[in-house]
Amino acid sequence: MKSNDDTSKQIEDVAGNGLVHRRLFLTGGATLLGSMGLLSAMPASAAPLEIPPWMKAPGAHMSPYGQPSKYEQHVQKIVGGTPGVVGSGVSFTPLEKLHGTITPNSLHFERHHSGIPDIDPDQHQLLIHGLVDRPLTFSMNALMRYPTVTRIQFLECSGNSGRNLNPEPQQAPLGALHGLVSCSEWTGVPLSVLLDEAGVKPGAGWVLAEGADAAAMSRSVPLEKMMDDAIIALYQNGERLRPGNGYPMRLFLPGYEGNMSVKWLRRLKINAAPTMTRDETSHYTDVLLGGKAKILTFPMGVKSLITSPSSGLSLGQPGLYEVTGVAWSGGGKIARVEVSADGGQSWGEAALTEPVLSKAFTRFRMAWRWNGGPAILKSRAIDESGAVQPGRDELVGVYGQRNNYHNNAIQAWGIAANGEVSNVFA
Amino acid sequence: MKSNDDTSKQIEDVAGNGLVHRRLFLTGGATLLGSMGLLSAMPASAAPLEIPPWMKAPGAHMSPYGQPSKYEQHVQKIVGGTPGVVGSGVSFTPLEKLHGTITPNSLHFERHHSGIPDIDPDQHQLLIHGLVDRPLTFSMNALMRYPTVTRIQFLECSGNSGRNLNPEPQQAPLGALHGLVSCSEWTGVPLSVLLDEAGVKPGAGWVLAEGADAAAMSRSVPLEKMMDDAIIALYQNGERLRPGNGYPMRLFLPGYEGNMSVKWLRRLKINAAPTMTRDETSHYTDVLLGGKAKILTFPMGVKSLITSPSSGLSLGQPGLYEVTGVAWSGGGKIARVEVSADGGQSWGEAALTEPVLSKAFTRFRMAWRWNGGPAILKSRAIDESGAVQPGRDELVGVYGQRNNYHNNAIQAWGIAANGEVSNVFA
Repeated sequence: MKSNDDTSKQIEDVAGNGLVHRRLFLTGGATLLGSMGLLSAMPASAAPLEIPPWMKAPGAHMSPYGQPSKYEQHVQKIVGGTPGVVGSGVSFTPLEKLHGTITPNSLHFERHHSGIPDIDPDQHQLLIHGLVDRPLTFSMNALMRYPTVTRIQFLECSGNSGRNLNPEPQQAPLGALHGLVSCSEWTGVPLSVLLDEAGVKPGAGWVLAEGADAAAMSRSVPLEKMMDDAIIALYQNGERLRPGNGYPMRLFLPGYEGNMSVKWLRRLKINAAPTMTRDETSHYTDVLLGGKAKILTFPMGVKSLITSPSSGLSLGQPGLYEVTGVAWSGGGKIARVEVSADGGQSWGEAALTEPVLSKAFTRFRMAWRWNGGPAILKSRAIDESGAVQPGRDELVGVYGQRNNYHNNAIQAWGIAANGEVSNVFA
Repeated sequence: MKSNDDTSKQIEDVAGNGLVHRRLFLTGGATLLGSMGLLSAMPASAAPLEIPPWMKAPGAHMSPYGQPSKYEQHVQKIVGGTPGVVGSGVSFTPLEKLHGTITPNSLHFERHHSGIPDIDPDQHQLLIHGLVDRPLTFSMNALMRYPTVTRIQFLECSGNSGRNLNPEPQQAPLGALHGLVSCSEWTGVPLSVLLDEAGVKPGAGWVLAEGADAAAMSRSVPLEKMMDDAIIALYQNGERLRPGNGYPMRLFLPGYEGNMSVKWLRRLKINAAPTMTRDETSHYTDVLLGGKAKILTFPMGVKSLITSPSSGLSLGQPGLYEVTGVAWSGGGKIARVEVSADGGQSWGEAALTEPVLSKAFTRFRMAWRWNGGPAILKSRAIDESGAVQPGRDELVGVYGQRNNYHNNAIQAWGIAANGEVSNVFA
């Protein structure tokens, strides 16, 4: 590494403990970065390059459906079941091992209440009935002919980050703490088209959505949301939905808690009022401090997570690091992400990756000069409505610690002097 | 189906043979579409919904790395080898079976000249040398610490669509004709950062990029491109690159012919002039009518393909159809896509899916009322520079039929009265 004594001050710090102005990561910033001399390449040897074994003979042929490198087999979802309940459980996206904003389909989080049904698409149908002029049935073939829309949007389980509501911070990889959120490109048929074809009657206000799993997962959705941006999703990241994410069709409600985007959708009943199903009363109910509870709490709050560095990882030598993560909001676009390296005493604005899309992951990046001392990294997102990601104390002050849902509190990562990163409440 | 006699004229046609104005697919259009009564749902039976077998017992548990439904196993790449050449070949993305704009990593096209090397990332290094102040070597660990950028961009083989330069149209699925193009979210380190760290000397103008496959694939890239938007790609659609696409690292040159985005990158040598490697003289050279040839032709032209309907598929009953496809350009953003249903006599403007990104797939959609008679569907893309996708006759008039590269001609699909779709030159 080059000496950095002369050049390290060329870009001003914007917040305490080494946070560097985001223009380092914007147009023209690369030159400044290179000139800072804080990077980690090694001087090259003058000797000719060695010929590695894999250049000495032809490699493998192609496969019709590719898979990751054998060196990346550790990049897996963390799968957890519910003791004594067949088919119930969760799998977490390993956010700390991914980059960018798209979650590959093989690594999209899942939450099942009675396992993954093995649905023959030729036998599956969607019924729309209730307060409509013309009850309709859609076969897959019929539905596939309808006009579609395509959007990149996140999906987050209402119970994501629930583990961080424990009194003490648990030590686990980022994905195991917060990995019930993913982001995909969804393509499907706008619900508004189907509901208009059925003809919604006056007095209708809610829609019961029912899945074809053994739990018959059922949720009530406001008709207004159904007519706004709801779709019947058929494709995820270009290919047909995976079984674990609702094959052959699922409801997709942008920005709403994941459970409402009912998988394996088989029925939509137009009603005057919410149905008060088991899944929106016994589950997915937010217990408040004092014992009262909120139900039918749909949009997911504004939230961000630093994916690198994050818990369980370890920094190497002091020097320049990219602090990066994802931010999202059920309320629309991310307007700003701020990063702190001193536990929230001072904040600097991170660079956002374009395009910033509504109800989608936005990747943020910040340059941080780690001086080798202790630090506490935090990120705080603000959305276009002005909503600000709350601190953990603020959130716990409303919900107490008996609630399992809608935890969008700021995550703090503690950096020890030896570079180890841990989950801290700070 | 409902009668459509009264309602089918509610939205005006914009071009001959049934093309409907794109506002049908824009905000507020859904209501009109539903009211057109041309869709394909069936009246629902009054009988209660049957309980399918998969609702009667808990389903399968989750896997740590998910896979497609067994009913979608036919969605595969078409793999072709070069006779007598071990490891050389191509695999085509089945574009006609995908939707949206993202290509899943398992289905990204590949082109290999000597197979897929099995590279241990801990043994792999990148050397930057030649006309630089400080030759540098990057281990994977070192490179992973650098600042990154994330962008959604297409990659297209220079030889894509070469089969359509035959004198007669071949009958094959869209993917087998045109599937050497895909679109992904790429995340990696800007080359400009690495080159600035190495310090490029005066007089440098070109960079030789060499891969660590047994073919040692080598191409010359203008230094200007390297300093502009070139990256060392590390992640594709969120996860680390697949072996077939360059694991553990590849060069990625947005908008340039795919072969130049050298996979398994191991060396960048900064030179004054192009190296004239085997791969840019014997291959990837465009033969012109008259026998002269063009070399070092880098950007891929503006192009579009209708993915549905497309060759080998068959329309059902006459009625309203979504005509949809993808458009892209090495010259920047797509400005407009036009669709014709009468073989190019008249054109209507398609709806473009937001966000329209530079050098990325843009999904377009058009409503078409098929009257059950013969039709010829075409799409024509125009990019932000004003470049217009050429007709096949126009392209063949420049290149003749001995050229294999840079075929961005308009594709025509013939629709027979029985609904069968075929590849036609028209």
